[in-house]
Amino acid sequence: MKYFLSVVFVAHLWALSTSLTAAPAAFQPLQPLPAQPPIPPDNPQTPAKIALGKQLFFDPRLSVNGSLSCNSCHNVLAGGEDGRRQTPGAHGKPNPRSVPTLWNVAYFTAHYRDGRVDTLEQQVQDHLLSETEMGNANPAQILDKLRRIPGYVSQFTQVFGKEGLTYHTLAQAISAYERTLVTPNSRYDRYLRGKKQALSPQERRGLRAFVDTGCAACHFYVNLAGPVPGLAFQQGEGFYELFPNYVGSEYDSKYRLLDDPGRYRATGDETEKRFWRVPSLRNIAVTAPYFHNGAVNTLDEAVRVMAKTQLNKVLTEQQVQDIVAFLNSTTGEFPRTIMPRLPPSPNTTVLESSSSAP
Amino acid sequence: MKYFLSVVFVAHLWALSTSLTAAPAAFQPLQPLPAQPPIPPDNPQTPAKIALGKQLFFDPRLSVNGSLSCNSCHNVLAGGEDGRRQTPGAHGKPNPRSVPTLWNVAYFTAHYRDGRVDTLEQQVQDHLLSETEMGNANPAQILDKLRRIPGYVSQFTQVFGKEGLTYHTLAQAISAYERTLVTPNSRYDRYLRGKKQALSPQERRGLRAFVDTGCAACHFYVNLAGPVPGLAFQQGEGFYELFPNYVGSEYDSKYRLLDDPGRYRATGDETEKRFWRVPSLRNIAVTAPYFHNGAVNTLDEAVRVMAKTQLNKVLTEQQVQDIVAFLNSTTGEFPRTIMPRLPPSPNTTVLESSSSAP
Repeated sequence: MKYFLSVVFVAHLWALSTSLTAAPAAFQPLQPLPAQPPIPPDNPQTPAKIALGKQLFFDPRLSVNGSLSCNSCHNVLAGGEDGRRQTPGAHGKPNPRSVPTLWNVAYFTAHYRDGRVDTLEQQVQDHLLSETEMGNANPAQILDKLRRIPGYVSQFTQVFGKEGLTYHTLAQAISAYERTLVTPNSRYDRYLRGKKQALSPQERRGLRAFVDTGCAACHFYVNLAGPVPGLAFQQGEGFYELFPNYVGSEYDSKYRLLDDPGRYRATGDETEKRFWRVPSLRNIAVTAPYFHNGAVNTLDEAVRVMAKTQLNKVLTEQQVQDIVAFLNSTTGEFPRTIMPRLPPSPNTTVLESSSSAP
Repeated sequence: MKYFLSVVFVAHLWALSTSLTAAPAAFQPLQPLPAQPPIPPDNPQTPAKIALGKQLFFDPRLSVNGSLSCNSCHNVLAGGEDGRRQTPGAHGKPNPRSVPTLWNVAYFTAHYRDGRVDTLEQQVQDHLLSETEMGNANPAQILDKLRRIPGYVSQFTQVFGKEGLTYHTLAQAISAYERTLVTPNSRYDRYLRGKKQALSPQERRGLRAFVDTGCAACHFYVNLAGPVPGLAFQQGEGFYELFPNYVGSEYDSKYRLLDDPGRYRATGDETEKRFWRVPSLRNIAVTAPYFHNGAVNTLDEAVRVMAKTQLNKVLTEQQVQDIVAFLNSTTGEFPRTIMPRLPPSPNTTVLESSSSAP
């Protein structure tokens, strides 16, 4: 895996700053969200595959004891996460990192907050076995359960042919559904497409402050999270930043910003200590609490912390409020979705062996 | 609260037995599920109230730490329960009784497995405060959270006028949604309406065995759970049975049937030891595991246990399979539902105070 440091992108700042005063058509670094994200060639989207993946996404039987579905933590009825600082997995043990949103996850080129896996498919597989998430002991344990659910077996055969239900196709189906989790047409997107009135005067001031302060040096392109597939980056290449970049502020201890070594934990590479994948700011207003440890409850405080720790700047209260107003304009349109029906295991439960576990 | 013993209904057995040989129109004790359940006059259904209740039903912020929504345990994407023997509440402590289905709950005249509350509204309020369920300390704790979610405040004002968001209206909204959880038009219902071919020959044999064995002495009327509002019973009157009725079989210890004193735990009345509200058999094929403690995993075993413990009969394997086939025909039509969008608390989380709790 390669990664880029933001210094490479400082040149964008100039482009950003000038583009704000030019016609919207001239915007390059800030781009509206395309309605369709990149789709990997080896896992094409089909309606039947997406429908299957949606059922699996909402099915708590994917966790070891039936306690959690993907949606339990990545609540797509809301901001794609769960509003909690820490979230216990199926065994009751919390993941030390706060749940990130799944909305627009398909625009990322590396996954997890530390970018430790290249693809969504691999991330799904990891989640199923993580002891702080779905808690299954091994792939066989989960496949055994799903093979006792006739409606899944038949759908996997229909969608994947002879391969049917395997650990590989399981991850493919869920990932296909996750790639439909996109929120286009926010007011910010409409503004970028030329509808100036889509943003209020305060929101436009906020966008200007967002760029002038330097936030957009990292939070740019379609997902406000840096490069995306086909735009400079390939799948597997992550866009990482040091956080805190300026160590020594009061926030380090107040929000325990130095406790988690970030990407170093995954790679063991000393030069990657406290490096994190730049997160998307889309829908940020509806995904509190903030940061990898969920230590900050409010968006205005998160903006203050970022300005200080990343750019060594202290914003005025007006700037903070303006930037928060702008960030609220990135909340997109959430798709209207029919609730899936989960296929039954008639006359029995597939959870009997561990149904008493917490 | 009054209750009736099944001996009152033994007269039905004769009616049932003869009605099976007569024209379907003659059925009285076995009746199809009406598409609309009884609605209490003090909580009329309106589309806006149901839509609000649906959001609340799916919102994990109703639990003390954001870990559980009503739907987490009463999964209406499936059988209205969670397929688990026991289910820990928001604080991690399991309820000793297995989660019952919410489908067709509106046809009950008393609520909980022991019928200890009269109305769905009261049950909702109890769940919010139960330490083995939603785990809130008191009504104020939950109302404080919800009042910080603008989309709820405005909807409660719209639906309930000047009363707005209170603990009373909160329960009313959720109950209104729960009264939409009905599954009419099962094959069994179509059979009762005169479409004989809606049941296969085995299923018809099963229905006959179900009646002749005596199961229908308790499992009758629209919900296969005894009297309903307007049909002999009023709201608050529960239909209770002793279980096990015949003590001494191998099942007592195998499935720990004597451990839980049932209704006695709620009333302290010695004469109500091991009395339980007769549960509905609708959708029973998709609500394993079985019984108040979830101790039995499969429906065929549940049928064997019931015949022995309630009627002191040992069924042939053919009879068991026939009855199981018949019970599968009661699985109804589940409504096609649009997923709710949960209103946000912009720029903050309402879960901060307890977000690290398990």
